[in-house]
Amino acid sequence: MVLDTKTIQKKTAGQKAAEFVKNGMTIGLGSGSTVYWMLKMLGEQVDQGLNIKGIPSSLRTEGWAKEFNIPLTDFSQVQRLDLAIDGADEVDPDFNLIKGGGGSLLREKLVDANSDRLIIIIDESKMVYQLGKFPLPVEVVSFGWEVTAQRIGDLGAIPELRKKDGDIFVSNNGNYILDCKFKQISNPKELHNQLKELLGVVETGLFIGMTDLVIVGSGESVKIYEKKQ
Amino acid sequence: MVLDTKTIQKKTAGQKAAEFVKNGMTIGLGSGSTVYWMLKMLGEQVDQGLNIKGIPSSLRTEGWAKEFNIPLTDFSQVQRLDLAIDGADEVDPDFNLIKGGGGSLLREKLVDANSDRLIIIIDESKMVYQLGKFPLPVEVVSFGWEVTAQRIGDLGAIPELRKKDGDIFVSNNGNYILDCKFKQISNPKELHNQLKELLGVVETGLFIGMTDLVIVGSGESVKIYEKKQ
Repeated sequence: MVLDTKTIQKKTAGQKAAEFVKNGMTIGLGSGSTVYWMLKMLGEQVDQGLNIKGIPSSLRTEGWAKEFNIPLTDFSQVQRLDLAIDGADEVDPDFNLIKGGGGSLLREKLVDANSDRLIIIIDESKMVYQLGKFPLPVEVVSFGWEVTAQRIGDLGAIPELRKKDGDIFVSNNGNYILDCKFKQISNPKELHNQLKELLGVVETGLFIGMTDLVIVGSGESVKIYEKKQ
Repeated sequence: MVLDTKTIQKKTAGQKAAEFVKNGMTIGLGSGSTVYWMLKMLGEQVDQGLNIKGIPSSLRTEGWAKEFNIPLTDFSQVQRLDLAIDGADEVDPDFNLIKGGGGSLLREKLVDANSDRLIIIIDESKMVYQLGKFPLPVEVVSFGWEVTAQRIGDLGAIPELRKKDGDIFVSNNGNYILDCKFKQISNPKELHNQLKELLGVVETGLFIGMTDLVIVGSGESVKIYEKKQ
């Protein structure tokens, strides 16, 4: 199988991240197509005797993890993870992220936020100077979503109810997703707080100050960026 | 049927509130046993020609409204309500409320917050000097609720996962409810903000600055309290 450039970058970044997983760790398993490659590599390491447990951040990831024989656990057993490895839709120079294109932002955030360390794996196209070109996913309660959308609109966005195959998309938690087009997101932290305050908003796709390391697939190699101290 | 004292108070308060409903209004229909009496009275008025529409704040209320032939609508048709009438578990002298004992706090809050006017109907036992004797219901996402509970605990509460008939109680929105015992709630607004900020918290049962009028059943009459200007 011949892989295109972007897929090669995803594969390279995903495989590299698996090197950071050590024996005995509990791992947050992120979501998305780049994470797929990390899981595949992790599965090979498990086959070779690596002893880890993972908490998946989406139903899709859970399926892949099972396919690759990665042992799973959950938050009733574990309160704190050693390391989470996740993808992103956009990453800015301060390591702020937009996530949620895949529709599992809340579980991803719970996993990522409860990990001692977060590694983000992306292809080059995800690096941006300023967040906001990718519409910001905001998870909202389905009841009264029209009113919630109007209030988000008052913050300067054009919110669009996410659909899939013509039906309203429903998150793993039974909520709706509004994909919110802002012209630009100049202050991600402030915007997150304003959104999260709103009645009906469950969580936003802005991941602020959580990322420790970014691995970017670049050609067939990777670039690794560490958090500025 | 002989009614006990508390039920008489609920009935009296509920019936009184129905007098505030005028022809042509869109009404937020709250939840709980006091609201039941308001709905019953409203149904009689509809039978006599009153033309209104209601948005129910719980599945139980929806069932009662249908039983009493009250025409219903929803937020896809209407963005703003003329009046909402709802119950409460506790009301303090500043008209701050604790709600959610019935498990529908989020829908209730969406209905109440999007109404031009909110009337709260209660029996005398619900009036308190300070909120907090009634455990504060907090609606949380089911995934990772254990971690969310721990973070709420860090704010000084003892959170207890709500159960019903031995099973975990699930809200109308598919979430869990944590009933949080605080020793006292000295600053309801601040506490609401702290809780709502937390990852995994969907909404709290603190209703701050929303109430315009409180109708208290007292014996077979009512006391009516208006918001201080």
